[in-house]
Formats: sequence, C-alpha cells, structure tokens
Amino acid sequence: MSLFTKNFSAWYLQTLQDGDLVEMSEVRGCAILKPTACAIWEHIQTKLNEEFKKKSIQNYYFPLFIPRSLLQKEGQHMNFSKECAVVTNYRMIKGKKGNLIPDPSAVLEEPLVVRPTSESLIWNSYKKWITSYRDLPLLCNQWCNVVRWEMRCRPLLRTMEFLWQEGHTAHSNREEADEMATIMIKLYADCMADLLALPAVIGRKSERERFDGACKTYSLEMLMQDGKALQAGTSHFLGQNFARAFNVSFTDNKGQQQYVWGTSWGITTRLLGAMVMVHSDAKGLVLPAKVAPLQLVILLTPNLAKDEIWKRHFVSIKGGLNEVNLRWKLVVNTQKSLGWHLNYFEKKGVPLILILGFRELEEKKVTIKIRDNGLKIEHPWQDLSSYLVFLLEEQQKRLYKKALSNMNKKTFYPSHWESFVTIMKKKEGWAWAYWDGTAETEKIIQEKTKATIRCFSEENREGVCIFSGKPTSCKALFAQAY
Amino acid sequence: MSLFTKNFSAWYLQTLQDGDLVEMSEVRGCAILKPTACAIWEHIQTKLNEEFKKKSIQNYYFPLFIPRSLLQKEGQHMNFSKECAVVTNYRMIKGKKGNLIPDPSAVLEEPLVVRPTSESLIWNSYKKWITSYRDLPLLCNQWCNVVRWEMRCRPLLRTMEFLWQEGHTAHSNREEADEMATIMIKLYADCMADLLALPAVIGRKSERERFDGACKTYSLEMLMQDGKALQAGTSHFLGQNFARAFNVSFTDNKGQQQYVWGTSWGITTRLLGAMVMVHSDAKGLVLPAKVAPLQLVILLTPNLAKDEIWKRHFVSIKGGLNEVNLRWKLVVNTQKSLGWHLNYFEKKGVPLILILGFRELEEKKVTIKIRDNGLKIEHPWQDLSSYLVFLLEEQQKRLYKKALSNMNKKTFYPSHWESFVTIMKKKEGWAWAYWDGTAETEKIIQEKTKATIRCFSEENREGVCIFSGKPTSCKALFAQAY
Repeated sequence: MSLFTKNFSAWYLQTLQDGDLVEMSEVRGCAILKPTACAIWEHIQTKLNEEFKKKSIQNYYFPLFIPRSLLQKEGQHMNFSKECAVVTNYRMIKGKKGNLIPDPSAVLEEPLVVRPTSESLIWNSYKKWITSYRDLPLLCNQWCNVVRWEMRCRPLLRTMEFLWQEGHTAHSNREEADEMATIMIKLYADCMADLLALPAVIGRKSERERFDGACKTYSLEMLMQDGKALQAGTSHFLGQNFARAFNVSFTDNKGQQQYVWGTSWGITTRLLGAMVMVHSDAKGLVLPAKVAPLQLVILLTPNLAKDEIWKRHFVSIKGGLNEVNLRWKLVVNTQKSLGWHLNYFEKKGVPLILILGFRELEEKKVTIKIRDNGLKIEHPWQDLSSYLVFLLEEQQKRLYKKALSNMNKKTFYPSHWESFVTIMKKKEGWAWAYWDGTAETEKIIQEKTKATIRCFSEENREGVCIFSGKPTSCKALFAQAY
Repeated sequence: MSLFTKNFSAWYLQTLQDGDLVEMSEVRGCAILKPTACAIWEHIQTKLNEEFKKKSIQNYYFPLFIPRSLLQKEGQHMNFSKECAVVTNYRMIKGKKGNLIPDPSAVLEEPLVVRPTSESLIWNSYKKWITSYRDLPLLCNQWCNVVRWEMRCRPLLRTMEFLWQEGHTAHSNREEADEMATIMIKLYADCMADLLALPAVIGRKSERERFDGACKTYSLEMLMQDGKALQAGTSHFLGQNFARAFNVSFTDNKGQQQYVWGTSWGITTRLLGAMVMVHSDAKGLVLPAKVAPLQLVILLTPNLAKDEIWKRHFVSIKGGLNEVNLRWKLVVNTQKSLGWHLNYFEKKGVPLILILGFRELEEKKVTIKIRDNGLKIEHPWQDLSSYLVFLLEEQQKRLYKKALSNMNKKTFYPSHWESFVTIMKKKEGWAWAYWDGTAETEKIIQEKTKATIRCFSEENREGVCIFSGKPTSCKALFAQAY
C-alpha cells in the first residue's frame, strides 16, 4: 500500500517536496514558493487579469500596513479576529547581551498591523474617491501578500503569509453589488475549471462560516481525493456594512445622499494545494498541461546521448516544437539511467516525456510517455508537434473529467440521519442534505460528525432537515474540511 | 513662469496627482499605486521576466518576515542599517480605554523584521540547496514588496514600502559572479531604454555609497530634468561575503570545499518616478507609448456626439484599431467642451488624441494631437491604424532621443575646481571629473558642493583629481542626487 492510500497528509507533503513546488522556510508558518509554484501562480494571474480587464476591473496597490485607527473604525461595526502581525517598533539595536532587540526608544505612536485583508484601507480611500453616482461602480483589484497569525500551518493550504488577489468593488445599488458577488464566484469557478482542471461547487456560506463584514458570502468548494473539502475562493456581498463603517456615501442621480454598496472577493495560492490534492497520484505530482511550466521533456537514451548523430536529427524536431510554442526541455542523459530520469520527471508532474533512442532514430519516431494515465505510445516524427499539442489538450480535458467523475462518485445524497453519519464518519466524500437553516442544528451536526456546512443553496422544492426533521428548502453541502 | 520651471518638486507632486499615477495614503510614508502606475509596473515585470527567462533566471517567493537570528548572522559580518519595521506581537486586543493595543500576552519570542531586502533569507536557503558545483549557478529572482523605515518620503522616489524585483545568484567562481553583476546592470539599462525611453549611465559606486554587503556595486544613474541625478537600479557583486556569513559552500569538480560567489540586483517602482521626471512637461504627464495603458483616446466633438451618424462611420475605424492591437478608448463627449477633454487626457499623458467632428466626418479624416511635441496633424481614415502605430513608434523613439539629448546637454566635463563648483552650485546637471579614489576627497567635495559621486569608472588614461590634483585613472560622475 502506497503512502497515497495509507496517509494522504504525509503523501501531500512528500509530493510537494519531490515535486519541488514549495518548502516550509525557517520563518514560522511561512513557505518558500519554488519556480514551478511561482510559474503556475503567474498563469493564474495572467488569466484573471485578462478576465478582470474584460469587466473593467483595474489593478491597484495599497499599503501593506493598516494603522490601528482604521482597524478600530472597522471593529466598531464588525468583530474581526485580531490574530495578526503587529508592528510596534521601527528600529533594531544591539541589546546588552549583544542580541538585536527592538529599540525601546523607537516605539511607534500608533501600532501598525500587517494586512490580513485590505477592506479597511480600501474603504478609507473610497471615502475620498467616491462622491457622486458618476464615480460608481468602482472596481478595484490588487495582487499582494497578506498575513494571518495561524497556529497550525500546512504548505499552500494554511500559512501565516500567503499570496492572493483581493477585489473590492463599490456600487450605487444593492442589486448590482449582489450580482457582482455572484458573477465573481462564477468567474473563479470557470477560470479554475479551465486553467487548473478543477471542478467545484458554488454556494452560500452559513452565518457561522461567512466573512464577518459580509451580508452574504459565496464560496467555491472543491473535493480532494481523500474525501475532504477545501474552500478554494470566496466572494462577499458586503451590503452597506463597510460604507457605514467608513462613511462612504454618494449623491445619486436624484441628488440624494446614499451609502455605497460593496463586494469583495479573493483567491489565494491555496489553489495550488487544491491542484495537487485533486490531480496528483501515488507517483507524485500531476500538473495540468495549461499551467505546467515544463510541458514536455525529451530524454535521450544514454547510448544515443553518447553518439553525436542525434544532433543532426534533432534539428527538425526542435523547429517544430518551437513553432507550436511548447514549453519543452531536452535532457542529454549520459550519467544516469533512463529509468532514473523517467522517475525524476514523473515526480515533477511533467505531462509528457518523449524518449529518443537508437531504435526511435532508425524508425524515425518517438516513444511518448503520458504522465497522468501512464500510457506509452509511439509516433512518427512527421506531424509530431501538432500531435503533442493534441496530447496536451487531451490531458487537460482528461484531468478535468477525471476530477469531476471523482467528485460525483464521492457526492452523496443521504436521506436519513444514520446514513449521513456513516458517510461522514467514513470520510468517503461530501453529502448534500436538507438543513433547517439554524446555527443550532449546524453546531450539533458538527459535534456529532465533525462535518461542517461547506455551503448551501435554496432549492425550489421543500424537504426535511437531515437532523431536526423540520421542513426546509435549504440544501447544504456537508463535509470534513481542510 | 509655470510650476515646471519654478518649482520642480511641487510640479512633480502636481503631475502625479493630475496624472492619477499615485497618491500618498493614510499610512505614514506609504503610497497607493493607481491603475496607470500598476499597468506600467506590469509592463516592466513582463519585459524583465522575458529577459530573465532567456538567462535561465527563475522566479521564487520568499517570506516577508526575517527572524532576528538570521539578521544577526548577517550583522556579524556586515553592518546594515537597522531602521525597519519590527513585528513584536501577534494579536491586537481591546485595552482599558477601549483602544486596540498589542496584546501583552502575545509577544513573539523572537521578533521579526519586515524584509528591507532578502539576502539573509535567501542565503539561508542556499545553505540547504547548494552542496555541489552541479547545483551552480543558482539564479533566483523574486517580485515583492519591501519596507525601509524612511523619515522623508516622496511618492515613487522614496517610500516606506515599495515594490521591487530582487535577483540573487550563486556561482562557483569569482569571474562568473562578477560578470553576472555587470550583465544585469546592462540588462536594466537596455530594458529601461527600450521600455521607458530612459537613457542612463552605468558605473561603479564608491565604497561610501555601495551596498554594505557587496564587494562592488554597479548602478544605473539617470539625469532628471531639474539637473539632479536619480539612482534607478543597482547590481552587486557580493564576493563570498554572504557565503561566509551563512556558511554556504560547495564541493568543486576537484572535490575541494569552496565558498560560493554571489550577486544581487534590483529595480523598484522608483523607475516610474524617473519616467515622470524625465519625460513629463509643464502640461503634465507624458507616457512612453510602449507602456501607456491608454495609447490613444478618440474624442468626438460635442456636436457630432449628439448625432447618431458617427456610429456608422466609426465601425470601420474601430475594426482597424483592434486589428493592430492598440490600447484605445472612445469618449463620446456630450457634457463637457472639447478643450476640457483635451486638457484632461493631456494631463494623463495619453500619447495620441484623435478628434472626430463633423468636418472630419465630411472629409473622411481625423485630427490627431500628439501629446509630447504638441503637433496637430490630419490623416485620412484610410490606413489610419498603421499610421497610428507608426506615430506611437515615433513617439517612443523621440522621447528617448530627447531625453538623451537633454542628458548630454547637461553633462559637463570641468577641468578645474572652480568650474566644477560653479556647475554643482547652479545645479545645471552632472559632471564627469577625475577623482583620486579616496573617501576623504569624496567627503570634502560633498561638504563643499553637496554633490555626491553617483558612480565612477576606470579610464584607460590618467588625469588629475578635480579636487586634490593627485594623478588618477578614476573618473567619477558627480551630481546633486535624489
């Protein structure tokens, strides 16, 4: 039995390490993103920036620090957790023992908090920027790092510092803002399906799980291969909460003063964790072709590598690859065995490995090993590039289909409490069940099964709550969650 | 007399504000980058990422926080300034007066410093990553925010927090590392000439001005329109300094243990400040066409805007613009005068403004106003798009030529101390002069003229020091600097 089936958690860490995606740093709770992780994150950035542009959402950059005064303004109305990194001094000096210490003579008058999210800073700017309905909608986004003081960290999934994108919009009316929040969560779902081949469920968060400053929180929920759920993105309809807290109002087209309506929405590097836990396997990382920094490795067999003859033939193959814009690398392998290299690149999740030996040279073909389904096929040099493009497109589709089918297989619809409990205890997947909509029931279900409500949706027809038996039209997705 | 000639400093702030490039935030010393600034920064990122890729430099992301222990390790060998943001607590709670205060029961055992630069963190990782000559060279880059506790801030030029790119490389020998440092400073010069139309001088920093952990610092110096110099990028040959501090050694190909050789190099959002101070004019912002988020605005005259007829004709113009991938916007102007709009977009630095009125419609042409040289020309609809592309290319070249000619005009070669002093006092530009290479002379010159050595180079022939009269082959560029 492999680590993959035996201990998913340990397998995850091993896969990140072997795949050289990320490693924990010497700084408590902080990770180092390696080139593969950075490249995938850049793909996500490019894709979302394109989509944002279509919707006239513009990029801004706001400060890293939030002064206490702004945090308090926010806190009067909302009750955020205050577990965060607090900057109190502005100099380090040598202490008596020769140690560096925060200089006691350089204490900030007003402590600064490293942003856990930027609502307060941004709404404080909105106060200056918005006066009339002509200034609305105001659609801002920023790509940045944020810090939350987490006690239990896991690379990519929960770290003290992480990278994200946070969108903040201001609107002149409720309908437009509420629609914006749903548009953005759908946009996330579409982009992640397309780019990372990740299927997801969209729904609303219960009051207990939603963002404290929001009226409604929508979330993107994904099912991992171990049957646990991962929240992979959120979008909040903020109502007029922040507008009231920061006194942001505008003159409408009838000359009346009104508070602004808001949304905020974000996705993080956590998505890379989801990608690993949905697609990878016992052998290691599996990367979707669209984002794999290296889509193709060409391995020469040790014998051929020693003979200069390959160079002559390789010229035409190379030309074709560059024509179709593939991200590829040639490994002229003289030191280590073919098997060692195959294993090495499989762990790294490279979608396709081409093998070129004397036999292939004679027959003017290549052997292609496909990472995700393990198939080994041969193909002539003729039309090779377009065939490789086809294989990569197929891989992307296959990963999505497989993930979707896994998700569907592990989605249960229990109609009785006993079967619900069994499913949750076995951790086989997640379950849709009617819920009476009360925090009480939600809490008891969690106590009894450790399952939380990932999200819910209002159904057209009524059913009875899986726990209380009360009639309800609210159907919730329950799962053990990361 | 305009603000531009009267008070360059005030003009700069006004230009940033009118151009909506950046504004100072409520957070002391921190700025908000507006969409135009972000878009230009993204152009710089894209361009440099392309160049980095060609050189096999890969992107990483390292943590925001540096633990005291690493700072101390670095400090034993080098004497960095310790003016920085210090995180001491990990929670805010309500104090007795209802104020939020850093929770005294949540004090960090080890204080964290918000990175002013990441050498210590990265070299600490190199210790783990580098063991053999086969691991070298290791070429890392990261795009991130850094914080330095500055007392006197100026938007884009000097802020507490700023965005930058920091490259860190490790090599097996001195020559390769030293060459890397010079390659990178040249790469910066080429990219900024190409993208931002900014000419620069490259040279070495004197011991006094160089980075404390470096053996040699190369810098990119640019001359602003007020005759002051701006350091726009640096590249450091670190020798084995960081390798010794962090004990990073490798086994060479003869089996011997050796310390690694290093470089680091960076450019910041300060470049946007240079771009403004080199190209903009009394009317406001002038943006190089390659990076202008909006390259072209099409203004309908108020009369034409009221008549639906323009829509029919505009279809073909629009099609052409999209074919050549221009970044353009149509303003259907019914409320405000044509003059108001012209002024508005001129301040914003949009390279070309097209005017379309009844006269233009009849004659099937457009009037084009060119931002940087103020020319007004007419052009038929036929071949309009390719003509606009040509105009934008010309603008980019013209800005560079003009900046270069300005720089040359303001570059002086005094041969006597008296003329040197006069030039420096009049602040007319910068001056190349022989320097005896001593910190003493450097200091006295600064005391007498306020001019500092921006950079120097070794000449093939000898001259005499402008101040001490000693023979020397070292020629330095002196200027008042930002």
